[in-house]
Amino acid sequence: VGESSVAGAVLQEQCCSSLHGLHLPLPLSQLGKMTLQAIKWQDNQLYVLDQLLLPLESQYINVRDVKDGWQVISKMQVRGAPAIAIVGCLSLAVELINTSFEDKDELLDTINKKLDYLVTARPTAVNLQKAAEELKAISKKLYEDNLSVEDMVKLVSSWCQKMLDDDINTNKKIGWFGAESILKSAGGRNVQLLTHCNTGSLATAGYGTALGVIRSIHEQGRLAQAYCTETRPYNQGARLTAYELVFEKMPATLICDSMAAALMNCRKIDAVLVGADRVIRNGDTANKIGTYQLAVTAKCHKVPFYVCAPTTSIDLNLGEGKDIPIEERPCEEMTDIAGIRIASPGISCWNPAFDVTPAELITGGIVTELGVFKPSELHTILQAQ
Amino acid sequence: VGESSVAGAVLQEQCCSSLHGLHLPLPLSQLGKMTLQAIKWQDNQLYVLDQLLLPLESQYINVRDVKDGWQVISKMQVRGAPAIAIVGCLSLAVELINTSFEDKDELLDTINKKLDYLVTARPTAVNLQKAAEELKAISKKLYEDNLSVEDMVKLVSSWCQKMLDDDINTNKKIGWFGAESILKSAGGRNVQLLTHCNTGSLATAGYGTALGVIRSIHEQGRLAQAYCTETRPYNQGARLTAYELVFEKMPATLICDSMAAALMNCRKIDAVLVGADRVIRNGDTANKIGTYQLAVTAKCHKVPFYVCAPTTSIDLNLGEGKDIPIEERPCEEMTDIAGIRIASPGISCWNPAFDVTPAELITGGIVTELGVFKPSELHTILQAQ
Repeated sequence: VGESSVAGAVLQEQCCSSLHGLHLPLPLSQLGKMTLQAIKWQDNQLYVLDQLLLPLESQYINVRDVKDGWQVISKMQVRGAPAIAIVGCLSLAVELINTSFEDKDELLDTINKKLDYLVTARPTAVNLQKAAEELKAISKKLYEDNLSVEDMVKLVSSWCQKMLDDDINTNKKIGWFGAESILKSAGGRNVQLLTHCNTGSLATAGYGTALGVIRSIHEQGRLAQAYCTETRPYNQGARLTAYELVFEKMPATLICDSMAAALMNCRKIDAVLVGADRVIRNGDTANKIGTYQLAVTAKCHKVPFYVCAPTTSIDLNLGEGKDIPIEERPCEEMTDIAGIRIASPGISCWNPAFDVTPAELITGGIVTELGVFKPSELHTILQAQ
Repeated sequence: VGESSVAGAVLQEQCCSSLHGLHLPLPLSQLGKMTLQAIKWQDNQLYVLDQLLLPLESQYINVRDVKDGWQVISKMQVRGAPAIAIVGCLSLAVELINTSFEDKDELLDTINKKLDYLVTARPTAVNLQKAAEELKAISKKLYEDNLSVEDMVKLVSSWCQKMLDDDINTNKKIGWFGAESILKSAGGRNVQLLTHCNTGSLATAGYGTALGVIRSIHEQGRLAQAYCTETRPYNQGARLTAYELVFEKMPATLICDSMAAALMNCRKIDAVLVGADRVIRNGDTANKIGTYQLAVTAKCHKVPFYVCAPTTSIDLNLGEGKDIPIEERPCEEMTDIAGIRIASPGISCWNPAFDVTPAELITGGIVTELGVFKPSELHTILQAQ
């Protein structure tokens, strides 16, 4: 568990849980038999599970270059902030491997341009933007080293491939920390949890963030019931989260987005868990549309509200929620399902893909691979890294 | 404006608005050119617009007897608390007109039994139940009078037909009172309003309750924008309310149920307006699932929340929200749209058709044909009638 044990020790007093708490029967190393794989890297080829066809069809798209990568992200054939970053970078890796470069200047220039293009596919999630910045810095360093073009391509490509493994490990830690925090509050009871959108194996390299915490609690034998919202208009909850919950045989129930308040009134909900597309310095969090309304509802019912995200989703550069760019998507995503018109012809729509949840509503905490933090602690914790 | 002027005078000090306030340019008598008609009574025949086919097809069902009436209500081909009551009673009228009765004993017995059967079609709305009780009492009285079987059928049938006209008049008064209350708070500004589900011409005999208030504000030239929620899982907002708003050329925008909080944050919303399936003694209100969550969201954003309902929706017999029976509907309403599976196979669902909004969240007031009241005033006002 390497660096996170160290981080855990440092943070033991500051954060709500740590790897040293040992409240859970299963250790981190035993979490997560890999199941669903949304992103596959095989023999220098990239395959992405087409999430628009799920749950009815399982079909992988061969992503052959950056243009393909941009397309699958923009069309939402792959979605989820961590998955977008990985697919974006791996699409660059495929293209670099299959291109002949005159010299390192041309290679570096290509890397920079292609990364600038990739980050335009979707504006709200920060992970791809951060990965692109890191990859540019690394490429610049490699460019300055005494390396051949081929070696530089190989190293850049390895860095992209490593994102896959790193993300799974990160998610397992998030799952472990989140489980510990929630189960600690529950005493001996098994817990009932509510999640929004899809933050599972399909939104990440595997295991998941918010759904990773639910998965981890299930693996600990402590999940009484998982509830997932449909997540209109794209139905990621009904299509993808429900698919993962059924796939893993977790006790699970689907609700409509509008039923969360009634659910909290009728049945004991121990926590609401969501992912993040971007968490900023003060803890304000952009996530799938409907997250803010769920947080308002949770607060009103005194249900702890957790944001679960890798530190790669945290953007210390932005200070206020209103500064996060919010993507608005086409009307048809609301008015049509599977090519069938469901809304009255002629009606206008407002279709923001995300909303911003202010830090004060994140009452459970922000669950990262380093531990569970109060929104106000984020800044200090991350600058100490 | 008859009895409501009197009521208005009596209530002038107690309630938030009255017909004597005269804040609106258009008087009550000039509201509502009739447009959509969900329920038609022609030559002793009953026709009901099949709302499951809207907005793509406009097709009327000929309801020939009580069994047909029960079916169209249960299948939700007609819905909306006032419309259900009217269709139920009119289906009885058709059946009585087309049946030969030996004597008044048989007639009275038939009326009682058929009404008991009709109220089982859907449990949450109280209007049909109250209409059935009233009709039973009237029938008993007619039975005791010196009337022929034929005359008794004629009078029962006329009473049912009168429900249609009465409901439209009631709705126009609701529209007028609601508009006055909302526009008074807005000063000179035009207003932006949010509504849930369908409470328009399609849910009533015509004009509508919550949508009647929006219609009335539009007729007064004061509607800046109407927002309607999709209203999952049956999409009454996207299909029916959007249809009515487009039909009447009101400035209107559709949002998903989960977007209300974000909307209130991004754009000034002057009021949220919903209908009611049953308002009880303390003001707690059962209405379409999602209403409670909207009320929580409105309270958090300090947006006035109005329940708009005829006094026939008020049930003084029940004292607590938890006593209202809440109908749970089949999973397929959530998992399938137009015969297409949209959710993952194998997932369980929770599908309550209604929820209960506690009185303290109804911050704008309860808009009835008698005026706008605080929930706590209802009991006294109605007992004084």
